Amino acid sequence: MKSIKNNETAVFALGGLGEIGKNTYGVQFQDEIILIDAGIKFPDDELLGIDYVIPDYTYLERNADKIKGLFITHGHEDHIGGIPYLLKKINIPVYGGKLALGLLRNKLEEHGLLRTTEMIAIDEDDIIKFRKTSVTFFRTTHSIPDAFGVVVKTPSGSIVHTGDFKFDFTPVGEPANLTKMAKIGGEGVLCLLSDSTNAEVPNFTMSERKVGDSLNEIFRNVDGRIIFATFASNIHRLQQVIEAAEKFGRKIAVFGRSMDNAITIGRELGYIVAPKELFVDTQSLNKLPANEVMILCTGSQGEPMAALSRIANGTHRQVQIHPGDTVIFSSSPIPGNTLSVNKAINALFRAGAEVIHGKLNNIHTSGHGSQEEQKLMLRLIKPKFFMPIHGEHRMMKMHTNLAVACDVPRENTFIMGNGDILALTQDEARIAGRIPSGDVYIDGSGIGDIGNVVLRDRRILSEDGLVIVVATVDMKRNRVVSGPDIISRGFVYMRESGTMIYEAQQMLSKQMQRQLSTSPADLSALKNEVIDTLGPYLYDKTKRKPMVLPVIMEV
Amino acid sequence: MKSIKNNETAVFALGGLGEIGKNTYGVQFQDEIILIDAGIKFPDDELLGIDYVIPDYTYLERNADKIKGLFITHGHEDHIGGIPYLLKKINIPVYGGKLALGLLRNKLEEHGLLRTTEMIAIDEDDIIKFRKTSVTFFRTTHSIPDAFGVVVKTPSGSIVHTGDFKFDFTPVGEPANLTKMAKIGGEGVLCLLSDSTNAEVPNFTMSERKVGDSLNEIFRNVDGRIIFATFASNIHRLQQVIEAAEKFGRKIAVFGRSMDNAITIGRELGYIVAPKELFVDTQSLNKLPANEVMILCTGSQGEPMAALSRIANGTHRQVQIHPGDTVIFSSSPIPGNTLSVNKAINALFRAGAEVIHGKLNNIHTSGHGSQEEQKLMLRLIKPKFFMPIHGEHRMMKMHTNLAVACDVPRENTFIMGNGDILALTQDEARIAGRIPSGDVYIDGSGIGDIGNVVLRDRRILSEDGLVIVVATVDMKRNRVVSGPDIISRGFVYMRESGTMIYEAQQMLSKQMQRQLSTSPADLSALKNEVIDTLGPYLYDKTKRKPMVLPVIMEV
Repeated sequence: MKSIKNNETAVFALGGLGEIGKNTYGVQFQDEIILIDAGIKFPDDELLGIDYVIPDYTYLERNADKIKGLFITHGHEDHIGGIPYLLKKINIPVYGGKLALGLLRNKLEEHGLLRTTEMIAIDEDDIIKFRKTSVTFFRTTHSIPDAFGVVVKTPSGSIVHTGDFKFDFTPVGEPANLTKMAKIGGEGVLCLLSDSTNAEVPNFTMSERKVGDSLNEIFRNVDGRIIFATFASNIHRLQQVIEAAEKFGRKIAVFGRSMDNAITIGRELGYIVAPKELFVDTQSLNKLPANEVMILCTGSQGEPMAALSRIANGTHRQVQIHPGDTVIFSSSPIPGNTLSVNKAINALFRAGAEVIHGKLNNIHTSGHGSQEEQKLMLRLIKPKFFMPIHGEHRMMKMHTNLAVACDVPRENTFIMGNGDILALTQDEARIAGRIPSGDVYIDGSGIGDIGNVVLRDRRILSEDGLVIVVATVDMKRNRVVSGPDIISRGFVYMRESGTMIYEAQQMLSKQMQRQLSTSPADLSALKNEVIDTLGPYLYDKTKRKPMVLPVIMEV
Repeated sequence: MKSIKNNETAVFALGGLGEIGKNTYGVQFQDEIILIDAGIKFPDDELLGIDYVIPDYTYLERNADKIKGLFITHGHEDHIGGIPYLLKKINIPVYGGKLALGLLRNKLEEHGLLRTTEMIAIDEDDIIKFRKTSVTFFRTTHSIPDAFGVVVKTPSGSIVHTGDFKFDFTPVGEPANLTKMAKIGGEGVLCLLSDSTNAEVPNFTMSERKVGDSLNEIFRNVDGRIIFATFASNIHRLQQVIEAAEKFGRKIAVFGRSMDNAITIGRELGYIVAPKELFVDTQSLNKLPANEVMILCTGSQGEPMAALSRIANGTHRQVQIHPGDTVIFSSSPIPGNTLSVNKAINALFRAGAEVIHGKLNNIHTSGHGSQEEQKLMLRLIKPKFFMPIHGEHRMMKMHTNLAVACDVPRENTFIMGNGDILALTQDEARIAGRIPSGDVYIDGSGIGDIGNVVLRDRRILSEDGLVIVVATVDMKRNRVVSGPDIISRGFVYMRESGTMIYEAQQMLSKQMQRQLSTSPADLSALKNEVIDTLGPYLYDKTKRKPMVLPVIMEV
């Protein structure tokens, strides 16, 4: 970082600014870089076929020797999902809470990185010292246990990263450590990086405990089977619904790989307390009376392949919906999933189930603090400088207004983008240039081998399909030997459009012949002629613009 | 309808049951069919490239001679959008309110149907008599002027269709005619078909007037330019924002074709009252001071091609965002549009605009009545039988519960699907078989020439692209003459994967040669061999499943 002076601390993000997802933050003082989180982002509809998105790690690769470690705030995908891809490029130690590391372990195993990776479990009281910087932690509350804020002490001052947080004063797990936060704030904080997710939501986020109360209420009144869907990673939620099931004498059958996973890890590490006998397999499940059954499954976001969706549309091998079943969506649809969730709900209703969903019934609460909680964080940490993180631009903007309302001078707030560098001294801050940043697409096992050209092609193909023109030409005699034949996919039913295709062929062979006689032996000109002839013709006939692909062979 | 007895009246829907959209309802007594609405549905994400969806009109084509007329309840796309496609198959008179016919006129013009179509403007007091049936109307309030409920008098009794409605007691246009509804109910109603859209929403929908108050509040406090986006068809909303602009001394510039359209028709028919001088063109727009400008535009749903989206991402020719601009989204995102709306909002924030959106500011209200209003309708009409319409299954189910709560016996309620026939006498009702129903896809100018095969291909192409294997074989000598060459689109960058493709070619030519020697002169076997060889290989290398298309020519 040439742009940074020797006495300056640099704060930057490779992901997480102006977006929800791929959280990847860095704090650098001279030759020491502390990384915080390495997440993935889920693609939006335009990224056809893309599985997920990770940041461009170029800067980290170039400065691998400086990186002291990666510190994980908690175990959600948008904070740990990118780690395997990062570790494939650089080998660095990973520090994190027990659960986060537990969830990470599976990923590393899949990617064959387990043996080569150094994982260090941290506790709230640990202090990780390096030559010039050191890292400490403070416990927060979030929709997954073992969520920590991170404090990076640098010669310029303390940089505080909240991780994802809410202030749940009656949490299911351990409470947030306000005392420690206040102490950190009291000792003086140079810059606060704080979670902006709910910056547009007024007031205070509902306590997870309240969800437990609602669940008990529902379990008390339901006679039939209960099918319960939520995020597998929401261990607190799982603990509460398991307790409710036990209390009202229901056995639990678990469906869905990630749910299995979460329960196993959760119980291993003691985050989920539940007697073994409570869980039953499919066989014994079907022997039990309806009011002694709870089915715990994935699919609360209507993911088409998840257990609940398959149960809903009747394609699940072990579980079908019976009239009298009650399905609980203990979740709220992530923007973009609304339609698929609606689809699942309608299918369940049609199959005769009762469905409990939506905010109305207090069966879900956010893991992110609302405006009052974000203000509380600001008042506790009392930073000199403020940098909103973890949010779309609008959320970061709102969050900045909250900071100003909490006495951070407007000129001390920095709404940044991925790659921007914030340079800090004890008493000054400035935007000091950029480092490489951007999106890298992961599709199947490919990393970064998909780009805009490929995506544009997929878009065209997805909208109007493709038409292939096959012909053999004799470039010496300049004439078409065989073809042109026309093959189409995703364009239109051939039988519906036989005459159109026939006409097209006639026209094409005329044009091709003419083209060959005007500019002989010019294959690319011939191909262009095919495209320029067929494209407009098909559009005129169908108002569609399929991809036209000339496949012309020479004899 | 063989399944129907001579003394029975049949009620059916070709669209609108179990879905939002393509509303198309029919009431038939013997040889007289009354049609109510003919709408389109907008496709969900799975219908790649499809523009919209209309019902299967087969039954109407077969019984064209019986159809007395099509009665339009109001001018929204999901009620009139299908009319041109229906009229292309059968020529029937169209009855509707002035505005609905005004909006329809444009469509018919585009489809060249204007001259051949008989359009009859109706008024609330009209009675349209046929030999055995007659049709009357009652005025309702909705998010577009000239919204009517329809009463079809049959020898079996009166069938009441509410159309889309809310009970707005302080509407911007004319109030709903409660007196007439009560009178209709008092005279006895056999069956009520009622709008289920907001059956899951408790309480009462906010009055449109309240939106006007909020707008005035905003206009009072904003100094910069105001950019206002809403549904073009929401004439009441347009009237209110135009009044606000006039009141606070702002000139209006209109952007977006459908908005232009709505303003023109609205003013022609007197639904929008606004002095001509209020409107300015782009030139004079840029001469005016910021606080004397309002830009009225389309794009409140984040439609990528609409004016607001282009303004937001800086691709609009006439309008750019200046810091200090205030953009108002006077709308709420339709499920499925949430992401694109978010995108637009973020882009606007980033460009330096203030953005007012969401329910918080009372700048939008629904056109559909909530639970209390649906109950009010039930209490006014007092039907013997009840059939929820215009909603997804969950909404129709909730609506039925409301009907039961309002003393309709549960056995007198019928949650039906498109194509189901409800057969009614004075005192009995039964489900009596089905008529053909289903979705017909419209893509470009093609109607129904797209089916599941085409869509499946588009899906595959959109996710992993396509790989074409081109080769020429000599079927007499059973050997590959040229190729195999590999062409790909939407699959992977070729340069990234040169070796993979090279390997694939080597393997393919070996396999093809072997195939030709084992089963000579069998082209389809050869093609399958190519698919079976290349598919698994590429999946193994990339974990992707592109469409593999062998193009093999014989010499």
